[in-house]
Amino acid sequence: MADRVFLFDTTLRDGEQSPGNTMNTPEKLRVAKQLEALGVDIIEAGFPIASEGDFESVRLIAEAIKNSEVAGLARANDEDIDRAWEAIKVAKKPRIHTFISTSDIHLRHQFKKNKEEILNLAVNAVKRAKRYTDNVEFSAMDATRSDRDYLCKVFEAVIDAGANTLNIPDTVGYAVPDEFGGLIRYIKTNVPNISEAIISVHCHNDLGLAVANSIAAIQNGARQIECTVNGIGERAGNASLEEIVMILRTRKDLFGLDTRVKTEKIYRTSRLITSITGVPVQPNKAIVGANAFAHESGIHQDGLLKSKITYEIMTPKSVGIPKSSLVLGKHSGRHAFRERIIEMGYSLEDKEINLAFKRFKALSDIKKDIYNEDIEMIIMDEIYKIPEKYELVYLNVTCGKATIPTATVKIDIDGTTYQDVGVGVGPVDATYKIIKKLVKTNSKLLRFSINSITQDMDAQGEVFVKLEEKGHAVIGKGADTDIIVASAKAYINGLNKLEYLKGKKTGDI
Amino acid sequence: MADRVFLFDTTLRDGEQSPGNTMNTPEKLRVAKQLEALGVDIIEAGFPIASEGDFESVRLIAEAIKNSEVAGLARANDEDIDRAWEAIKVAKKPRIHTFISTSDIHLRHQFKKNKEEILNLAVNAVKRAKRYTDNVEFSAMDATRSDRDYLCKVFEAVIDAGANTLNIPDTVGYAVPDEFGGLIRYIKTNVPNISEAIISVHCHNDLGLAVANSIAAIQNGARQIECTVNGIGERAGNASLEEIVMILRTRKDLFGLDTRVKTEKIYRTSRLITSITGVPVQPNKAIVGANAFAHESGIHQDGLLKSKITYEIMTPKSVGIPKSSLVLGKHSGRHAFRERIIEMGYSLEDKEINLAFKRFKALSDIKKDIYNEDIEMIIMDEIYKIPEKYELVYLNVTCGKATIPTATVKIDIDGTTYQDVGVGVGPVDATYKIIKKLVKTNSKLLRFSINSITQDMDAQGEVFVKLEEKGHAVIGKGADTDIIVASAKAYINGLNKLEYLKGKKTGDI
Repeated sequence: MADRVFLFDTTLRDGEQSPGNTMNTPEKLRVAKQLEALGVDIIEAGFPIASEGDFESVRLIAEAIKNSEVAGLARANDEDIDRAWEAIKVAKKPRIHTFISTSDIHLRHQFKKNKEEILNLAVNAVKRAKRYTDNVEFSAMDATRSDRDYLCKVFEAVIDAGANTLNIPDTVGYAVPDEFGGLIRYIKTNVPNISEAIISVHCHNDLGLAVANSIAAIQNGARQIECTVNGIGERAGNASLEEIVMILRTRKDLFGLDTRVKTEKIYRTSRLITSITGVPVQPNKAIVGANAFAHESGIHQDGLLKSKITYEIMTPKSVGIPKSSLVLGKHSGRHAFRERIIEMGYSLEDKEINLAFKRFKALSDIKKDIYNEDIEMIIMDEIYKIPEKYELVYLNVTCGKATIPTATVKIDIDGTTYQDVGVGVGPVDATYKIIKKLVKTNSKLLRFSINSITQDMDAQGEVFVKLEEKGHAVIGKGADTDIIVASAKAYINGLNKLEYLKGKKTGDI
Repeated sequence: MADRVFLFDTTLRDGEQSPGNTMNTPEKLRVAKQLEALGVDIIEAGFPIASEGDFESVRLIAEAIKNSEVAGLARANDEDIDRAWEAIKVAKKPRIHTFISTSDIHLRHQFKKNKEEILNLAVNAVKRAKRYTDNVEFSAMDATRSDRDYLCKVFEAVIDAGANTLNIPDTVGYAVPDEFGGLIRYIKTNVPNISEAIISVHCHNDLGLAVANSIAAIQNGARQIECTVNGIGERAGNASLEEIVMILRTRKDLFGLDTRVKTEKIYRTSRLITSITGVPVQPNKAIVGANAFAHESGIHQDGLLKSKITYEIMTPKSVGIPKSSLVLGKHSGRHAFRERIIEMGYSLEDKEINLAFKRFKALSDIKKDIYNEDIEMIIMDEIYKIPEKYELVYLNVTCGKATIPTATVKIDIDGTTYQDVGVGVGPVDATYKIIKKLVKTNSKLLRFSINSITQDMDAQGEVFVKLEEKGHAVIGKGADTDIIVASAKAYINGLNKLEYLKGKKTGDI
């Protein structure tokens, strides 16, 4: 058995399809590049048949990624598989990932097919995929609630048809580690040709056991783990990549297994997902949460002062958490700024650094300490932006206790300036009402959230909005030391994204 | 072996000592009552010797709780144990929980004692505790990195000394389920008098395995689980109560074990912790996260429409997630409001309901839909408040793009009104600067965060601030449809709490 575990990252597929985690094509591309740099073995880029937008992002990712395999998902039918291949064929190492359910529950209630029919569909799908590529993965959806012997029969047949990765998903997050490890062992023992394929698992976290189940699978012979950054995904999410990797690394004494992941890029990757989606990681999240390395009790602090080993099983440095003590400020020059950006894991062109540096200087004039989070926001705001149909020219808001919140807004739309004034139940409500009126948008605001980027009183506020129009959802973002301005920027950013979409053939941005 | 698992909740001790989760005495009392209603077997109320405030809250909880045991933590020395007893002796079912480290790493680097000395301290501590109560728990800190035979020797000795619960903590979160299960089995086999005590475990989540390790322990004979609501606690936190409970319930087919927990009170308990601390639960948190029951993919939604069983292993109702469709509004009467409050799990007096209803009516005049989260905030704000030295009388703020953020503030301090005006880098900064100046506070602002309580444009903003003065930390909270007003309220609430502290002997509020 191989002494290393392959990581199959599905942040861009299972992760992206969870509420609030929508990403546009350029964002997906950025994530894919970061996953490649992180050292992920396989990137599941999306579900090409799902929409034009999904197809297009899978295609672009397949084109851009050189050091990881790129997988496209397909149900077990010709149309899905052909479409998946169409999207990934440009990849250096393409993989078709096809799936069908094998559980009695799904067969009876959802697919309304018998076991023989499902088996045939599975085999035909693998054969179809095999016409395009040697790299074919087959997943038995709801495997943990399937009849074990039927499952083995299906696996044997799809290996014969050419599948070289067999994936065992705990689709509904029902398994517990002991039992799940036993299932893997059973499959390993009872599928005669199993040595011709790699065993993979895909665990969901409904009972909080996705990572533990994945580890139990590894102990019983699985060598591919499907996972996501920050554990995002359907419902309670998937197994979290960073936890799997750091368990194998911290407990190498037990497992003797490696991954190809450069652990010191974990934190940066986690932050990238958070800053794109605006979906926070809770402070007590293992490995990447804000408190994951914060020792609070007096007894623990006392021990740490005496020797790190007393309470620290891994270092913040090993997962790339930057030293918080190094804060930039108004006296920091271009050189220090550039160094910091490189240290944070970005590779920007000179022109882009100059643009970001200009904004950094403006911020440092009004804010004493500039943290990495501030720099991240500047880069998101300045570098990764899209064409702007709408531009906020002027905003004046009055609000307070015993004050009717009033906003005066001036917006430039395609070169012409429009202005209006109005009231709301709060300053953000008033501002948004006027923007909505001026822009004449039919979009719906689905989500609004504010994060304070750092802890200071003069912190930048970071606002995320989710807008929807005609079935397209976008995330708008804005940051400013004035949270009302940040809110206005986020809304206008979202509206610009919706507008940009209209001019594109692809389904999402 | 008993067919039920005892839950030892340490939200108020290990949970509360993690960054951001500070609670004051009335808040701790509310949490304790909720834990009692939830059906937790043992409530660890705090660490009495740690501070006057800790002592006082443990004492008040011991007095108030009737249906759960109340435990006080104590290091293995007379002073700690006497102090713990002093705090919990009024309890109906008091428990002393004493601990000392047993690992070579801790003995060598932190305690600088040999194994014999540690053993004697442990035995003496249990004997001391036994003078006060029959209910004594002993914890071997860093058990998972301790020599197994030494650990067994210590356990045998403390059982002889009278300990009736033996706790095995994975203090640094280093264990994996297989190995941890094996340790429990080893202890069960090699401690001759083990049948006289209940085996307990206390797992940390540094590698994301706290819950899985606890489950492995149960499978190997542990019958008490130490856990916290939302999994809060040191670093990456503790095993999460709701996950443990729902695993045992959903997989009763496997474990055949019960807890005493009323699962339909889980969500309410989780929300209480979040609304007190302001520390969010991530959307993909199992059981209590906002997306835990959200099925997003088309395939899953299709299956659910055909039959719930296809993708749902437990119902939102089973953990008490209220149906989101029932929204109150301006036409909702006192009766509907009262019903909702009861349904949400609060027990308020008539006077309190009237107070909350008044505020509800005012809010429904300006906000179309009133959600449970809004009602929760009203109750927090109106019912659970403290004497106010400072009161916000008037606030007017101007801000925006190309506007210097300016705040005019009028505050009533002990009956006299003071006012001033000034600027800042943003509207919150400007407001806080003036408040700080008027109140002449020396407190430091350690944390500032804004949550949008619901998703609408006219949502209330919920602001949390953490202030510190002379070693005392408080959490200030405020809610309003105007987020700048909410921010001002939160700051003033925090200042009032600091002021209230000065008049009290106890260490925290």
